[in-house]
This record gives sequence, structure tokens and C-alpha cells, in this order.
Amino acid sequence: MSGARGGRLPDAVGPAMMALNQSVDIDWKLWRCDIRGSQVHARGLARAGVISEADAEQLVRGLDQVAAEIEAGEFRWDPAREDVHMNIEARLTEIVGPVGGKLHTGRSRNDQVATDLRLFVREQLDDTLSAISDFADVLLERAEQEIDVLMPAYTHLQRGQPSRLSHHLMAWQELMWRDYGRLRDARVRMNECPLGAGAVAGSGFPLPREWAAAELGFDRPMRNSLDATASRDFLMDALGGLAIVGTHLSRIGEELVLWSTYEFGFVSLSDEYSTSSSMMPQKKNPDVAELVRGKAARLIGNANTVLVLEKSLCFGYGRELQEDKLPTFDSFEAATQSLRALTGAVATLRFNKARLEGALDHGHVCATDLADLLVTEGIPFREAHHVVGQLVRVAEDAGVQLSELSPTQLGKAHARLAELDLSGALDPRRAVERRQLIGGPAKARVLGAIEDARARWKHPD
Amino acid sequence: MSGARGGRLPDAVGPAMMALNQSVDIDWKLWRCDIRGSQVHARGLARAGVISEADAEQLVRGLDQVAAEIEAGEFRWDPAREDVHMNIEARLTEIVGPVGGKLHTGRSRNDQVATDLRLFVREQLDDTLSAISDFADVLLERAEQEIDVLMPAYTHLQRGQPSRLSHHLMAWQELMWRDYGRLRDARVRMNECPLGAGAVAGSGFPLPREWAAAELGFDRPMRNSLDATASRDFLMDALGGLAIVGTHLSRIGEELVLWSTYEFGFVSLSDEYSTSSSMMPQKKNPDVAELVRGKAARLIGNANTVLVLEKSLCFGYGRELQEDKLPTFDSFEAATQSLRALTGAVATLRFNKARLEGALDHGHVCATDLADLLVTEGIPFREAHHVVGQLVRVAEDAGVQLSELSPTQLGKAHARLAELDLSGALDPRRAVERRQLIGGPAKARVLGAIEDARARWKHPD
Amino acid sequence: MSGARGGRLPDAVGPAMMALNQSVDIDWKLWRCDIRGSQVHARGLARAGVISEADAEQLVRGLDQVAAEIEAGEFRWDPAREDVHMNIEARLTEIVGPVGGKLHTGRSRNDQVATDLRLFVREQLDDTLSAISDFADVLLERAEQEIDVLMPAYTHLQRGQPSRLSHHLMAWQELMWRDYGRLRDARVRMNECPLGAGAVAGSGFPLPREWAAAELGFDRPMRNSLDATASRDFLMDALGGLAIVGTHLSRIGEELVLWSTYEFGFVSLSDEYSTSSSMMPQKKNPDVAELVRGKAARLIGNANTVLVLEKSLCFGYGRELQEDKLPTFDSFEAATQSLRALTGAVATLRFNKARLEGALDHGHVCATDLADLLVTEGIPFREAHHVVGQLVRVAEDAGVQLSELSPTQLGKAHARLAELDLSGALDPRRAVERRQLIGGPAKARVLGAIEDARARWKHPD
Amino acid sequence: MSGARGGRLPDAVGPAMMALNQSVDIDWKLWRCDIRGSQVHARGLARAGVISEADAEQLVRGLDQVAAEIEAGEFRWDPAREDVHMNIEARLTEIVGPVGGKLHTGRSRNDQVATDLRLFVREQLDDTLSAISDFADVLLERAEQEIDVLMPAYTHLQRGQPSRLSHHLMAWQELMWRDYGRLRDARVRMNECPLGAGAVAGSGFPLPREWAAAELGFDRPMRNSLDATASRDFLMDALGGLAIVGTHLSRIGEELVLWSTYEFGFVSLSDEYSTSSSMMPQKKNPDVAELVRGKAARLIGNANTVLVLEKSLCFGYGRELQEDKLPTFDSFEAATQSLRALTGAVATLRFNKARLEGALDHGHVCATDLADLLVTEGIPFREAHHVVGQLVRVAEDAGVQLSELSPTQLGKAHARLAELDLSGALDPRRAVERRQLIGGPAKARVLGAIEDARARWKHPD
Repeated sequence: MSGARGGRLPDAVGPAMMALNQSVDIDWKLWRCDIRGSQVHARGLARAGVISEADAEQLVRGLDQVAAEIEAGEFRWDPAREDVHMNIEARLTEIVGPVGGKLHTGRSRNDQVATDLRLFVREQLDDTLSAISDFADVLLERAEQEIDVLMPAYTHLQRGQPSRLSHHLMAWQELMWRDYGRLRDARVRMNECPLGAGAVAGSGFPLPREWAAAELGFDRPMRNSLDATASRDFLMDALGGLAIVGTHLSRIGEELVLWSTYEFGFVSLSDEYSTSSSMMPQKKNPDVAELVRGKAARLIGNANTVLVLEKSLCFGYGRELQEDKLPTFDSFEAATQSLRALTGAVATLRFNKARLEGALDHGHVCATDLADLLVTEGIPFREAHHVVGQLVRVAEDAGVQLSELSPTQLGKAHARLAELDLSGALDPRRAVERRQLIGGPAKARVLGAIEDARARWKHPD
Repeated sequence: MSGARGGRLPDAVGPAMMALNQSVDIDWKLWRCDIRGSQVHARGLARAGVISEADAEQLVRGLDQVAAEIEAGEFRWDPAREDVHMNIEARLTEIVGPVGGKLHTGRSRNDQVATDLRLFVREQLDDTLSAISDFADVLLERAEQEIDVLMPAYTHLQRGQPSRLSHHLMAWQELMWRDYGRLRDARVRMNECPLGAGAVAGSGFPLPREWAAAELGFDRPMRNSLDATASRDFLMDALGGLAIVGTHLSRIGEELVLWSTYEFGFVSLSDEYSTSSSMMPQKKNPDVAELVRGKAARLIGNANTVLVLEKSLCFGYGRELQEDKLPTFDSFEAATQSLRALTGAVATLRFNKARLEGALDHGHVCATDLADLLVTEGIPFREAHHVVGQLVRVAEDAGVQLSELSPTQLGKAHARLAELDLSGALDPRRAVERRQLIGGPAKARVLGAIEDARARWKHPD
Repeated sequence: MSGARGGRLPDAVGPAMMALNQSVDIDWKLWRCDIRGSQVHARGLARAGVISEADAEQLVRGLDQVAAEIEAGEFRWDPAREDVHMNIEARLTEIVGPVGGKLHTGRSRNDQVATDLRLFVREQLDDTLSAISDFADVLLERAEQEIDVLMPAYTHLQRGQPSRLSHHLMAWQELMWRDYGRLRDARVRMNECPLGAGAVAGSGFPLPREWAAAELGFDRPMRNSLDATASRDFLMDALGGLAIVGTHLSRIGEELVLWSTYEFGFVSLSDEYSTSSSMMPQKKNPDVAELVRGKAARLIGNANTVLVLEKSLCFGYGRELQEDKLPTFDSFEAATQSLRALTGAVATLRFNKARLEGALDHGHVCATDLADLLVTEGIPFREAHHVVGQLVRVAEDAGVQLSELSPTQLGKAHARLAELDLSGALDPRRAVERRQLIGGPAKARVLGAIEDARARWKHPD
Repeated sequence: MSGARGGRLPDAVGPAMMALNQSVDIDWKLWRCDIRGSQVHARGLARAGVISEADAEQLVRGLDQVAAEIEAGEFRWDPAREDVHMNIEARLTEIVGPVGGKLHTGRSRNDQVATDLRLFVREQLDDTLSAISDFADVLLERAEQEIDVLMPAYTHLQRGQPSRLSHHLMAWQELMWRDYGRLRDARVRMNECPLGAGAVAGSGFPLPREWAAAELGFDRPMRNSLDATASRDFLMDALGGLAIVGTHLSRIGEELVLWSTYEFGFVSLSDEYSTSSSMMPQKKNPDVAELVRGKAARLIGNANTVLVLEKSLCFGYGRELQEDKLPTFDSFEAATQSLRALTGAVATLRFNKARLEGALDHGHVCATDLADLLVTEGIPFREAHHVVGQLVRVAEDAGVQLSELSPTQLGKAHARLAELDLSGALDPRRAVERRQLIGGPAKARVLGAIEDARARWKHPD
């Protein structure tokens, strides 16, 4: 990382270089983490006897003042000072005088920014974990409320088998469960402290690294100074996890868009989560769900960007690492905005029971149950499947449902069919209840799954 | 696109939805294009007799005032008004009164934003093309200046054959030539006008689409209203082209980083384009080249994002299209900043002739020429290659160069070698001049290539 | 590129290295191009007087025999010979004896593979262009056949305005038109010949580069030997263009999946392009459209891969370039398979006119027309939009369509409404015909667009 | 998933559809997992009383025979049978007769392929984990062997501070440690069994899901049938983790390429891991390291592909999921090939101690130590940094090292400098030993880090 010109190099760069070089328009967001890290560093220098306690105290208080100025919106970020770190240090020195020049003792911007970024990402991960958990709560609540609503399970967007709305909502909840675990694992893995690693080969002073790590809430100091300053897999890890969250939310968003169509009519978004058109006065649009799909593209793109950025970099720190901040900030914002908006949208969603259950009446959703019935009569499944497939064709040609076929039509397909009582197989409600096995949509099973999930979410870590 | 609530839907949305829904923090950058498009639309409405000339005049002047306010930094962008379009229209109505409500006649935000975005992208493409051309000019100038400096051509980062610095710079220039052509083709392809396409099925009024297209500098109106409002391949095209530019610049950046090392020592960046370290006082770092590599990651990531965003979208307009703006703005900025900084860096670069030419002394860069000499003696190339390969091994073991091998050593490898005059083959300077064929590094050939390129760049379109 | 061990290096590598190093399991697909390029090189060597005409003749005939063996499936590809080039040359030498060792004179695998790959990509581009053109033909044909079928135009997947099926198909056709142009531009840009560039600094022999380029159908020799061997923007360009094609086809695929649902019911895929389920006997699934969406993911991923691969590579040739072949082969296959399958699927698609036109009856698709009518009465559009928005709410609450509202209800919203004849505004068929402007869905306009497109596709280049 | 035509649909599809639809050319690799899963399913059917024990036994033995045929290379994969599953089932039925038609009872290809793929990925993850661990072993071994070799630590590829080769190798090892943990977490998360989930809504038979899960080595059955058949985050997770591995290996590869240059000369690859050139007989190229960089591009591209593929998919199973297999297979192969080849290359690498330590003599690598010395004299670091920066400039201008400056020159920069003994600060060897803090390069610290790492790797899970 560059900076501190004026000794080796002239004071200023030209405008084309400055436009490329400055980063404070983006990295100012790290200011809280930067100040917190610097305060711990100042106190660490005093503990190591490198500066006096009085100097440390002055630095800490000066940094408090800088924080207050930023908080109050009175701070002027200056691109000529390049980045958040130099902006804060320069202002600190204006406030406290020459002692400000002692803050950077035994430290480099390389370990400083690595520390700031880990503090920031940890905080953002906690925020995201909490947003995931809130969304899961809403899903569990809605699953319980709608426990008696049936609907078809689709594959290939074609009606497949009878199922239960709650079962569908619980599938969404399972995605959130794994997403939570994945980001929590990333949080555990990244919670190590780079401070003290210096530019690349460790600080020249015997800094109390374990103490500083503990002060900043880290589990331990990082074990290798080169790794500490030049590695960013914690970003690849976090942004990769967020991209999966985004992918999952986009699937939910896609279903909400679809279910909101006139043609499906399964749900109505509350007005609060709907938008209209600037031209077409009748429109009530599911923008919330579309935006969630759109954010997923950004989350995927950002995950890709940090991988590409890290590829083939020599150790240690190289300046392109600066470019990881925009994708990082954007991904956390996109993920938490999406989670929170979907949480509100699903909490206030109206499910149209008549349309959902009505969808079981067409599409031969019990064809598998009919084939299964033949299996219990000893007919190999492949043959049963073939027989029922032909029956469906007959029904389609006649424009009727399977239950409306005559005994003659049934008997032509397979002799046993004319004799059997098919009503149990062809009643969607009974078909759902037959699926009592683990992971199935029968009522008791889904209620059990809700209970089990509630227990897991109470202690997810 | 949403907006214009209050008729069909209540006035406001909740905070989680608003955070996701508003876009003015990003799309305000389109303001100039938005105002220009609206002014043409207002005049078009008058031409079509939909509104009066006086109304149109009032709208145009009101928009001029909005523009002046924005220019002066006095405009307050309001997230509650969602986006750049509604912010401007709302302010216009404050200024001109109820007639402001006529501006959006026969228009939708869907054709409006498509028009704004095309105007913006076209302007940015022109800016990028000019930056590419400027960079090529500097490359040609440096190639001419350094025409007499030899250096090895590397493959696999190993010294390969004798070549010429100008030949290397001309390779960079060839990349720029194709990048220019690619973006120019994209510009030609995208220069069509969506205005008049309405929300999706065309405006309900007989707007003068050809006139409006011409007024806005477009080649023609778009041919299909659904395509006009829902397609964004002009963004995929532009961002794809910019990603290739970024990839090319990253290759140049990588070479500058490498050539700036102590170990290579081929170049010195001017101080103006160098940075130092916050910890290590001796450092002079090639951050400009590293940042260019880093920007390439962003350019690749953004190109990916817009492809992902467009994938599997139904027609017509869907709200996720809002999400294409950040990657678009970021890519143009990253590309032009990189081009301009590299232009300055290369213009002020100092080439170290001694180190470049000195690199020809080691690495057996004339081994191919020796094999070629054997070929002219009638020995099949594969055999000649094998013979020289063994000689290199002998030389390496002895710690000498090929030219220092004794006739005995040479003769052992192949009888003819002891008899031939090898000095021509083993002199790098003569080896370069032997490569007179098209595309080769001989001096006359490179001078010709420079002249030819200059002529092409004069009329690149 | 490596190879030709045995002189400088020992003959063999270990198994871990061999697994990574060999590429013949993938690049054997280049064999036709490789043989064609080698035959021209052999003849070029003779023209330049480097080898005799008789030698050249022997090489050409030997290569013909190798081709015949591969064609007949009798060729044994050997990973120990690394790649397609060494496999063919080794077999050639078995056939023709020591003269085989002359083929590689004045050539490197670096210019050889660059030539092979350009020949291959050019051929594949031509194939893809032809597949795009065939698809456009089918779209034009269907657009003409279905000219009288109306349907709603959707935005946000909500019914928006009345439109015409042919207008929708013509939007798809417009995508194909630009995709064609983009790939054709890429083809023009890449049609230059690397042969003669040698390893990096040009061949050591005065090869007839212009003659060879012409023989191989290239427009000219590449202008710089370093660029010729180390640049692959022609792949980034082609794969980027294919990714856009994939994105477009995925949009069409998404619509076919949706339109095939029971809920929409707009289309039926022919049985030939449908699939069933292994478990659910009633299923008729739109796998063709889903696979097209899936291929789009591969096309996007591959475009990304080649960009990432090229990023930050030093000149000249580096071995990672080997890794661009799998994505290249996969992308062309995915694109042409998708195009051809969609062409068949759309050609045999049955449109359900009753469902398409029935969709105009609900969703207040003429609300914009009603607002436009108020505009013609002098009411500013924003006000008109608001009035109609409130009317839609009234109609929704009453469960009726706009045309079913009573004069009293209308009059409450706006006095003029009770007096006007609304039947013209609220009839979807008349609403479509009102959109006569360029790019609109009125019948005459769409017929004109079809005619215009047919003319363009006759001479697309 | 399609298949089992002939009931509902005609027997065959056309060639364009077949080319797109068949997948056996790729998914045949799943055969072992498919057979293993089917055998457990057959026994599960018997346990549930759905088929007889005798039938189950016949199916299991028939599948053993199919496995034997595949193993022996006698199996003919038939694209007309679409995929690995139908190929195996069809052959099974040829062998065992009509009872073969019972295998698919209560199962769908949807839960079948999900089970196969999880078995496959689990096995591949185990293989990758073991390859990572082996590579770490070699790194630890080399770190121990080279413990006394010093070298500069670089930032921005400029010499920064004195360090130790082992410290650098231990940084590589830290990357591997986290990569191991990340993939192991993914393995834990994915080890759940989909079998029994049926097509989407659960099997219609009371299958013993817990028993089957245990038989197949899974920790539990998946909790939701919809999630079980339609989710693939285990692939996004695994491929994301592999992309990070690839990124890390590419960094190591980049350093090996660089260190192998004549200019750096830090290492020599063993001949076994080197390659030569087809044209330039002297070349010894680091292709192994370049290929590792290239594979990283594929790993990044594949991770992107599966994210894109999953985005916006409705539940349940959709056919595009077929397209995840090629990227999955390719990523595991690329990662393990890269790991194994790098393991061999590093194990046999020769470090050039003279060149590594010689690099400390130039570049003012002790400038930070000099500034630190001034700090111990009470001078604020920023001032000290400035003073030393100016001294470096003086030294550069004079063409000398800092230690060669005269007292007068030193005194001019800062009075104290003329008086102090600078030899300790300016001796790289002592500078390294001063960095005793945690994570620093002092010998004892690095030896401790090696010991600690060895202990961790013994029980990495």
C-alpha cells in the first residue's frame, strides 16, 4: 500500500494517477473499524513500552474526537489523502500535534487495512446471520399458519404430485438453515487478528499480539505475517457464501413473481411491498421479488470479482487488493436488503387457498399414486408407469381427468384397473397423507419438521 | 418499472422495501441524458399535436432550470421519489405547475430509462474510444523513440529469442487496435432509439419516432417496442468489450510490475506515477500497474454480472434491470481511469537500455538460430533441435554460453558444427535483423509497422 | 508451449505431471485444422526454398494419410505425446520417415496452435451464424402464420397492454439479428493468420506469409509476431458473443417453460421436443427449454473463464493458454445445440389461440388506453393515470372489469368519464390497432416489420 | 428429469433434441455411485416389504454384474438411453428380466441423481482433502529443510524487508490449512441423503430412509423432499471452495514462474517437472506452474457456472440441473491434478540459496529497521519514516547502499544518525531475528510455527 510520500517521492501525483489511486470515496465506510483498531494499536504500543501511556492516552482521545466529527457529519474526506487511514491519521495529527506521528509506529497500512476489513466483515456477517435467522422465523410462522393448505408440487414447472404449502415453505427454510451454517463457518474461520504483522515481515517492535487480538474480539493473532497481510480468502469465503444466499433468495423471488401472476394467482403481495407503473395505471408489480433476483446477479458477480482479483497474485501485499472493497460492501448490502425485504414481503403475503388447492384438480397429479397402487398388486413399477402413462393419454384425448375414466377405458389399459377401487389413489388429499415418510408432506410429518426446525434455530451455532 | 403510486396503491412503502426499491443514489448520474431525452419527448408530443407548442416550450424551459439546479449542486435528490426520473419530473412540476403532469404522456419509464441509458453508454463509449486512441498514440511514439533498443522476447517468462523493445510495444498497440474496433462495432450496433416504445407495446400516441431518434443522434428508432424496452444486450456488449480492454491492460500492467522489479530492472516509472509505503521508507511501488490489474477484475466481474442479470428474464421489462447500472457505471470509470493512468505512466516511463540489452547475454537466446543454421545445411529441424538442445545442456553444465563452447564440444554434438562459422547465428543483433518477414522484429519491418499503424489510427472508424 | 524433450531435458515426466501436462484428450478435436495448417506450412517452406518441392509433396501426402487414419477411427491418440500436434507429427514421421522432421522447420507450436485455433473458431462461427439465421427464418415464418393472434404484452410478468403474438416473436427475431451481427463482427476481426510468427519473434526463415494466409482463407497475416502467438482476444470475443446468444436463448426458453405450464397454457411443445418423468407417468416436460437455460449458464461461465485465463499474462505465449480449449469447444457446442433444438421446438410449437386471446379479458390491459383517452380530453397524463388507477381499485374491489363499471362509478372518479364513449378505449383489439407507430403491434406495422426483416436476413453480412 | 417415454410420449426424439437431451457422454462417470445407490434402494424396498427379499437379491446381483461389465470396459453406453441411470437400468433388465422393472419402485431419477451426485462429491472431497494434506506435508518438510535460508519479503513485487524462505513457505501452508477447513466444512454440511425423496413430494412407499442413509455413509436423511431433489448448494459450496484452492495455487504458481526466471533465479524446477519448446532448443519452461494458474481460471469459471445455473430456478427439479455435471467433474479433476503436480514440483524444487540471500544486498531492505531505530530514540515514526526516505534518495542518487553513507550524509538527514551505531539496524540477518513476535520470521518463531502446524495437521478434522 502506498502513501507517506514526501520522503522518497515528491508530494503529489497527477490527476490521472490520483483518480485511479485514491480510494477514500469507497473505503471511508471502514472508519469505525479503523479507529477502533488504531486505539487498540496505540494502547498496545504503550503496553510494549514503545510509547508512553500518556502518548497512548492522547492518541486514543484524539481518535475519539475524530470519530465524533465523522459521526456528526463534520469530517471532510479528502481524496488527496488517498484513503480512510491517511484521512483519519492526518486529522488526528491536526488535533493532537506531533504525537500523532507515533500512532503508525510498528504498523503498516498493510496490517492496518487487513485488521479493519476483518472487523468490518465480521460485523457484517453477524448482521447477515441475524437477517437470515429472522427470515427463517417468518417462514416457520407462515408454515405453521398455512399447515392445512394443499397445493401441487411442481417439477419442470409442471404439476407433479399433491403436496402442502407448508412443505414448500419448509424447503425454503432448509436453504436458509444451510446458508446460516455456511456463513457462520466462514465467520469462525476468519476471526483471527492481522494486527502486528506489519508490512509483510512482522512489526519491528514486540507488540502484544495476543492481547490486541483479544481486545478486538478475535480468537487469536494470525500465525504468519506474510499470510496476514496478503491473504483475502476470508473475502472470497464470505462473498461466496453471500452469492449462495443470493441464489437461494432469487429462487424464492422467482416463485413469488410466478405465483403473483394472474395465471397462477397463488399469492398477493401486500400493497406495502408492491409497486405500480408510471404508464399503466392498473399495474401492481412484484418488484420486490424481481429486485431480489437482480441483487443475486450482483452477488454472483461480486463473488467472481474477488476470486479473479486474488488469482495469480504474488506475496505479499499488492495494491490491487484495494479493489476488493466495493464488491464486499455491495454484497453485504445487497444480501441484507434482500433478506429484510423478503422477510417483510413473506410476512405480509396473502396466500390464495382456493387457487392453490384448485390446482390439484387438473394435471393428473395422482398419476404416480395410481402407478404405485398397481405396484402393490405385484406389477413391476416400470410396467405400471407405462400403463398409467397410456391412461393419461387417453384421458387427455377425452379431455377428462383420470378419475373420470370409465371401467372399460381403465380395463383396456390393464385388467386389474377395472376391478380396483381407485378413489384412494386418485384423491390428492389422501395422496398427501400417504407420504408419511421422513421428509414427506403429510401433515404430522410437516408439523414435526416445523417443531424440529424451531428447536434448531434456537441454538443455530 | 414501478412508480406513480397513489392511484392503484397507497402512497408509501416501508423502510425495508424502500431501501431495496430506491435507486436514485446510483442512477442520478443519468440526469443529463434524462433531461435531454425528456426535452425531445416534450417537443415530439407537440409535433404530434398531443400537447400544445406552448406547453412543450414550458416543459423544455422547466427542464433547463432543473438542469441548472443540478449543475449548481442545489438539487436535493430524494430517495422517497425512487429514481432519477421521478426526482426530475417531480421538481419540474414544482417549477412549472400542472403542465408538468403532461410530460409523461405517451411515455413510460421503461422507454425513458432505455433511452437515457443508451445516450449515456454512447457518450461513455466515445470517451473510452478516445482514451484508447490516446494510449495508442503514446505507444507509437515510444515505439519510435526506442527503435534501437534490443531485448529478449520471452515465452513462459523465460528468455526465448532476440527481439526489439519497439516490437513489444507494437504488440501492445495491436491489442488496442482490436479493442477500439470491438467497442466501435458495439457503438454502431447500439445506436438506435427506444423512445416511443412506451411500457412495452408502443406509445398510444402517434409520436414522431424518426424525428426524435435523429434529434437524439440515433441512427434510427428501434424496430420493436418489446425489444426496445426489455433488451439490454447493448450493455452486455459494451461491458464485454470493456472486460477485454481490462484484460489487455492487465497484461501490460503485469509486465510493468515485473519490469519495475529490482531483478528485471527494465523500466523506472516516473515519480508521478509511483507510490511509497506507509512503513517502509525505501519503497517506490508500481501501484499504477497493480491498480490496472485490479480494475480488470472489476471489469470481468461486471461483465459477468450483466450477463447473469439478463439470463432467463421474461419479456418485457422486469425490475431487476435496475441493477445493471452500478456495474455499467463502474466499468466505464474503471476502463477510462486505467487507460488514462497507463497512458501517463507509459509516456513518462524510463526504459533502461543497458538492462534490456544485457538480458540478451544470458539464456542462450540464439539457440533457435543455431538450429536454423543446421537446417540450412540440410539437417531436418527435429534433429537440429535435438543437437542444439544437447549443446545447451553441455554449456549449462560448463557454466558458459553457446558461443564459448570449443570446436571439440561442438563437434561432438554434430560434426558440421565444428566446421561452420557460428558467429552470425549466435549474435543476437544479427539474429533480430534476420527476422525480416512480415510481423518480425527487424528494424525496417518495425518501422514499417509503426508507419502503417499511424495511418490506420488516423481514420480508425 | 513445451514439447520436443530429449535434447535439453530427459525423455519423460512423472505421472502427476503427465496428467496435468497432456492435452490430447481435449485438443484432438483440432486435428483437421492442424493437418490443413501443416500442409500449407510444408508448401510454404518449399516456396521459400527451405525444403525441396519433393519433401513438401511427401509431407503433404503423409499428412493426407494421417487424416485418413483419423477419419477412419484407426488413429491411436497417445497422451505421452502430449497434444494433437505432436501426435500427428509423430505419426507422420512413422509414415514418411526422417523427412517428417522437416515439417516443423521455421515453425513453433506457438504459431501452429494459434493458427489451428483460428481455423477452428472461424469454422465454428460460420456454423453458429448459419444456425442463428435458420432460427430467425423459423421465427419469421411463425410470426407470419400467427399474425392474427392477439395476446397481452407483459411487464413484470403482469399483464400490461394488448399486443400481438407475432410482435412478440419479432422481438425474439430482433435479438437474433443483433447476435448475428455481433458474431459476424468477431469473425471479421479474427480472420488473420498467425502462421509464420514462430515461437514469439517470427520465423527464422523468409516464409511467404501472405501466400499462406490466403491459402488458409485468412484476410491477411497478423502484423506482429508477439501478438500473434500470445493474444487470444478472438476467443474472448467469440465466447462473449456466444454468452449473449445463450442469454437471449435462455429468455426464450424461460418463456416457453412458462407458456407451457397448465396455468398459462399458451403453447404445447410437440411430443418430439418433450420429455416425460421416470416416476410420474402423466408428465410432459419442457426439458428442451430448460436445457437451453442451463446451457446459457455454461456459456456465461465459459466466457468468464477465458477472460480470467487471459488476465495478467505476460507476453509471449504461456502454457495456461492450453486451458482455453475446453471452454471454447463447450461453448460452440452448447450454442449450436441450443439454437438447433429451439429451432425445431419453435417450428413444431402449437400456439393455443383461445388461451392467448382469453388472457386479454382479465387484468385491465386497457387501463392505459383509458388514461390516454382522458389525455385527449386535455387532462394531464399524471392526473389521468391517477384517476384510472383509482378506478382499477374500485373495479378490483367489485370484482369486475373496467368496462363493467357503472356511469356513477366512473363519474365519481372523473366527471368526463361518465360522458365519454369508452368502448373504443376498452376494446383490446382496437387498442392494438391504435399502436400504428414504428415498432408498434398494429397488424400492418408487424407485417411491414416481417417483410423488412426478411429482406435484411437475405443479405445479413 | 425426463425419461421413461413410451407411455405418455412416443418412443424417440429427433436428432437436434437428442443431441441436447442426452447426457451419458458426461454422467457415465457416476456409474459406481449409481449402482451403489440402487443396491441400497433395492434392499430398502425389501426391508419396507414393497418387493420380496429374493427380488432384492436378484437386483443387487444383477447390478454387480453391470458393475463388472463397466469395470471391464465391456459396457456399451448408449446415448439413446439418455443418461447413466437409464443405461444401467436397461442393461440390468436385460440381465435379470422383468424384475428389473421393480428397481425404480418408489424412486425417481430426481432423488436418484441427487444421491449419486452427493456420493460422488463426497468421495471427491475426501480425495481433495487428502491431496491438500499431502501438499502441506511437503511444505512443512521443505520449510524445515530450508530453515536457515534468508530472503527478502516483497510487497508490490519490490523488496520490502528481510525475511526467511521458510516463513514464506509457511504462508503457503497457512492457505492450505484454511482451504482444508473450508472443504471439510462443506463435506460435513452436504453429508445428508436424498434417497426416498422421490420426484419431489416423497416416495409413495414407507422406505427406511434412516437405514438407507446410514448404509450409504450419510449422517441423516435430508429433511424435506422438495429441498432434497431441487437443491444443489452442496455443489456451489464445493466448487466455491475449490475455486479458492485454485486461486491459492495460482498464487504459488505465479511465484514459481517468477522465481524460475533468469532474472530472479531463486529456484530450479526439477527436469521431471519442466518442459521444453518445440522451436527453441534451450528452453526449460515452468509449464507446471503455468498450468496450475490456468486451471485456476477453470475453477473460477466453474464456480461461477453453477451459481448462474441455480439462480432463479423454481422448485422442484428442473432439467437444467443436468448441466452442473461437467463443471463439477472438471473442477475436482483440475484441483487434484494441480495439487498433486505442485506437490511433486515443490518436493523436488532446488532453492538457490546464493540468489535468495544475495537479494538482501540491494533494495534497502533495512530502511524500516533504521526508522524503527530512530523511533527508539524518541522520534515519532512519521518523522523517522520521512528522514529515512530522504536518506534512501541520497543513497540512490549516489548509487550506494544505506550502510555505505557517510556520517556527514547521515547527519544531514538527522543529527542523531551521525552518532548512532547503525550496524545492527542495517544487518538483514539481525533484522530478521529482531522479528520474534508471533507470526514473525525469526528462526525460533518459524521453527515453533512448523511444530505447531505439524501438530494441527495430524488431526485436521
